[in-house]
Amino acid sequence: MRSQQDSAGGLRHLITLGGLARDALTAILDRAEAYRRFPGQPAYEGRELAGVTVANLFYEPSTRTRASFDLAARRLGAHVLNMDLQSSSRAKGETMLDTIYTLEAMNTDIFVIRDSEAGLPEFLIDHVDPHVSVISAGEAHLSHPTQGLLDVLTIRAHKRRFAGLKVAIVGDIKHSRVARSTSQALATLGTTDLRLVAPEALLPAENEFRAAQRFTRIEDGIAGADVVMMLRIQKERMVQSASLDDAAYFREFGLTAARLRLAAPSALVMHPGPMNRGVEISSDVADGPRSVIREQVNNGVAVRMAVLAAIAATLTRQRHPL
Amino acid sequence: MRSQQDSAGGLRHLITLGGLARDALTAILDRAEAYRRFPGQPAYEGRELAGVTVANLFYEPSTRTRASFDLAARRLGAHVLNMDLQSSSRAKGETMLDTIYTLEAMNTDIFVIRDSEAGLPEFLIDHVDPHVSVISAGEAHLSHPTQGLLDVLTIRAHKRRFAGLKVAIVGDIKHSRVARSTSQALATLGTTDLRLVAPEALLPAENEFRAAQRFTRIEDGIAGADVVMMLRIQKERMVQSASLDDAAYFREFGLTAARLRLAAPSALVMHPGPMNRGVEISSDVADGPRSVIREQVNNGVAVRMAVLAAIAATLTRQRHPL
Amino acid sequence: MRSQQDSAGGLRHLITLGGLARDALTAILDRAEAYRRFPGQPAYEGRELAGVTVANLFYEPSTRTRASFDLAARRLGAHVLNMDLQSSSRAKGETMLDTIYTLEAMNTDIFVIRDSEAGLPEFLIDHVDPHVSVISAGEAHLSHPTQGLLDVLTIRAHKRRFAGLKVAIVGDIKHSRVARSTSQALATLGTTDLRLVAPEALLPAENEFRAAQRFTRIEDGIAGADVVMMLRIQKERMVQSASLDDAAYFREFGLTAARLRLAAPSALVMHPGPMNRGVEISSDVADGPRSVIREQVNNGVAVRMAVLAAIAATLTRQRHPL
Repeated sequence: MRSQQDSAGGLRHLITLGGLARDALTAILDRAEAYRRFPGQPAYEGRELAGVTVANLFYEPSTRTRASFDLAARRLGAHVLNMDLQSSSRAKGETMLDTIYTLEAMNTDIFVIRDSEAGLPEFLIDHVDPHVSVISAGEAHLSHPTQGLLDVLTIRAHKRRFAGLKVAIVGDIKHSRVARSTSQALATLGTTDLRLVAPEALLPAENEFRAAQRFTRIEDGIAGADVVMMLRIQKERMVQSASLDDAAYFREFGLTAARLRLAAPSALVMHPGPMNRGVEISSDVADGPRSVIREQVNNGVAVRMAVLAAIAATLTRQRHPL
Repeated sequence: MRSQQDSAGGLRHLITLGGLARDALTAILDRAEAYRRFPGQPAYEGRELAGVTVANLFYEPSTRTRASFDLAARRLGAHVLNMDLQSSSRAKGETMLDTIYTLEAMNTDIFVIRDSEAGLPEFLIDHVDPHVSVISAGEAHLSHPTQGLLDVLTIRAHKRRFAGLKVAIVGDIKHSRVARSTSQALATLGTTDLRLVAPEALLPAENEFRAAQRFTRIEDGIAGADVVMMLRIQKERMVQSASLDDAAYFREFGLTAARLRLAAPSALVMHPGPMNRGVEISSDVADGPRSVIREQVNNGVAVRMAVLAAIAATLTRQRHPL
Repeated sequence: MRSQQDSAGGLRHLITLGGLARDALTAILDRAEAYRRFPGQPAYEGRELAGVTVANLFYEPSTRTRASFDLAARRLGAHVLNMDLQSSSRAKGETMLDTIYTLEAMNTDIFVIRDSEAGLPEFLIDHVDPHVSVISAGEAHLSHPTQGLLDVLTIRAHKRRFAGLKVAIVGDIKHSRVARSTSQALATLGTTDLRLVAPEALLPAENEFRAAQRFTRIEDGIAGADVVMMLRIQKERMVQSASLDDAAYFREFGLTAARLRLAAPSALVMHPGPMNRGVEISSDVADGPRSVIREQVNNGVAVRMAVLAAIAATLTRQRHPL
């Protein structure tokens, strides 16, 4: 795989948070903070992406992630092409590459790509022109880098530190790209106390998340946690893998106000959305004073603006070397 | 329900024309007139919505109304998200609210919402953040406020008065949100002579449209009328409710040149579109010298610009109180 | 049919390259060259279409052509409406015209229309308002004028002349709008040596392409050619008309490196896309040093910008006559 950064350390692609050093990661978070506008404030509008064309290629549907990338790009002045590809029975490989080559020939600068299968983002960064960038908006169960970034941005805003923080992730860790990307970002920033909470069948393989502790009872996993991060339940998978229906899952793993009292008094409640209320989380917790779930969405746009702007800056510098 | 206006009388939401005073309504029409550009002139382009994000949530398909809101918002400089939701089997209530909360967290300022069922717009204005506005683009059979506004703007442009005007509405009044919103606007502006023309089965309940006269023969209803407003026929409903097929409906209620001669010599012919030519209206009348049907479409964009701009001005004033 | 040019020679519509004089055609190519930016350069951004509304009406799906027109219009500052009409069972004639009239009333200035049947573009230019223009983005097997323009722009960039050039078009000529438009443009610019290569069943009728030579063996047709233009194979049609499956077609008519050696040493390889690699063209040729296929895509955006800008200039001049 080609590097995600150029020789000067500028961001060229973003498909995984693995290998992204603390400085690079922090620079993105700082830039995102400058772009963030809380609901009620007018959104940031800039020209950082003026003249830049962004193509959103979503092979897996996602209204919210696409809207987030779309707004992020347009608020910085980009032209955005939204290509809805999930409905077509895609023929991968060559044909997919021809789509990319065609859009490159139309002066597309940045591809944002989401796919339920593994491998496409890496394949693309090995094949795109040297002046073209690739951002993953979700790849199989493997990676969702902008979600990882928005999660740590949200935590940083409240906790102001990562070392010494106790973070519990609860749900289907095994199949979760969010858990993988967020835990990578946390590790890079210095969090060492990570707890994974799931039914036995949904814990990841032993050789993954090596530094984390594993729990099959939520009460044990979230005890004293500073951050409780709930994952979205894929209902079919839950029944199949863990023999738990909605009600049983909520009974055993759902985050309720009572359980939340086991966490630290100032614990944050997080969720990548969309939520299944009454399945993995109760509504009073989702909308309660500890919840930062809507802040995550707000930070999501800011993080995507930051990533797009960092990449555009690298592309410009590449065109006009000193 | 929360008020549609703030304490200073500024427009905050628009989901019904009921309760909107004559001054407020006239202010929107005046603003719309300033934005209107006749076909052949370049469209008005402004920055009144610069930095504003508008989300079009259409739970009921409507190519023309969506295009009208989309262009209105973009010509004033807004970023527009078009969300196509009608295909998904929506789960209302909580899930719908989570969509709204998510888009709010992305700094969406104005929601434009269309739904074939009743209640959603009111539900939303009770739940959105204080800095967020809701515009109905059509709600069940109940309300279609921007259609009502464009209708009275069109009438005003030609008749220059509302008092003393005879207005006939012809078609399925019972199920028509257009008839409800337009008649509310007319009443507010001083029109007292309203005639409803429909097969018995499609006249509204007795406790609605109390001030109007009812007719089951079109010849009686449009006699001497200054405005003849035809409604679009839903064919299935016509067969079911009134036992009339297309040809029979046209024979009994279709607006032909012969029938139009019964109206006032300078009568306007109106239709909210899309038309069923040869069912509720003949083509020679639809395209004839009395028809202002395309002017209605032209005024529709202007009215939507005016509503969006008025709401954006209120939101800005709210952020920067004197 | 109304003329495509106004009395001063300004471009009003573009639905066929037939009848477009060499000067007019060359003017478009020159303008396109000014707009062209090679991949890696920032795209041209201008205000030539500021205040202009373009509606893309695609009755036949085409991701790439639509993206090309969409970007071309937006990079010149237009507002673009993308209407996806192919899925709906359209009722043509009146209903289609009402869609056009509605969009005209919303101050749409330019319609870009693609249809798998013949007649719509001509029908439209006979019916639109005098301040509205129509561009064909592909009409049945008859016409695809911007493809013809991008093809000759690509050839001009490499060959710098048209007279004396040997051009071979290979594939289903009979049903190809690309072959028709490109050969018209070539004839206008002075190319007289045109060769058509296809299975007997897919050569055009005798009264078409009168000046061209016809070949049923690719080896004969491309011998000494300066340009080899491959057409996309519609697989179903190939089996039906010429009794050739993919493998047999490739064996008999596919462009391979060995066959390409029969052409002139500096021959260009072209393809309108999307390609069926391994059917009408081998991958090594498609991606090889003679291929200008991606340049065609790049030129496509430039040509569409040029056509849009030329039409917008005519519309403006019409509004403000000297």
